[in-house]
Amino acid sequence: MKQAILIRTDLKMGKGKIAAQCAHASIGAYLKTKKYSKDRWKREGMKKVVLKISGEKEIKKFYKLAKKRKLPCSLIRDAGLTQIEGGTITALGIGPGNDKKIDKLTGKLKLL
Amino acid sequence: MKQAILIRTDLKMGKGKIAAQCAHASIGAYLKTKKYSKDRWKREGMKKVVLKISGEKEIKKFYKLAKKRKLPCSLIRDAGLTQIEGGTITALGIGPGNDKKIDKLTGKLKLL
Repeated sequence: MKQAILIRTDLKMGKGKIAAQCAHASIGAYLKTKKYSKDRWKREGMKKVVLKISGEKEIKKFYKLAKKRKLPCSLIRDAGLTQIEGGTITALGIGPGNDKKIDKLTGKLKLL
Repeated sequence: MKQAILIRTDLKMGKGKIAAQCAHASIGAYLKTKKYSKDRWKREGMKKVVLKISGEKEIKKFYKLAKKRKLPCSLIRDAGLTQIEGGTITALGIGPGNDKKIDKLTGKLKLL
């Protein structure tokens, strides 16, 4: 089991901002996960990968695909108090889900 | 309610590494939080602040203080597969907890 977190790289967010968006996406997707998968992921050490995604169109595409494949996911919009405009999509959490299922969806994205 | 996430700045971690450690700390501390506080934090929008901490001695100090003040917390040790030595403490998640209580503990730390 693993969780993938996609972070937009076109927004020029600082590292603290990126870290916060990543945590939002991670907890957001976790909360949408079924108990059985949550428990299994926790037992296995809560593996996470943080991946680059190039822009809004691309992140929305992955969101749609993840939903279509019945993976728990959470699209994060920033409140816009710092650095970027309010409502901007910054990150996407996918899973935890089966390793192979996550890889099949996000395997071509590069590590941040 | 808010959650504070402390990230060591002396380890020269890349931004993807920092983001992953931040998500580990966030979920780790969340899972140790009582249901009433979890629910209240979720209702209020799951506020998080990501803060700088200078080294191992300092992060351990905050861990002890947070535990003493009965705040849920999770100290993260990295598996060491990438960038840093295995077992290294990288991050600390504190809360969610009462805003004032978190501020009293971490208020002097700077935003990452």
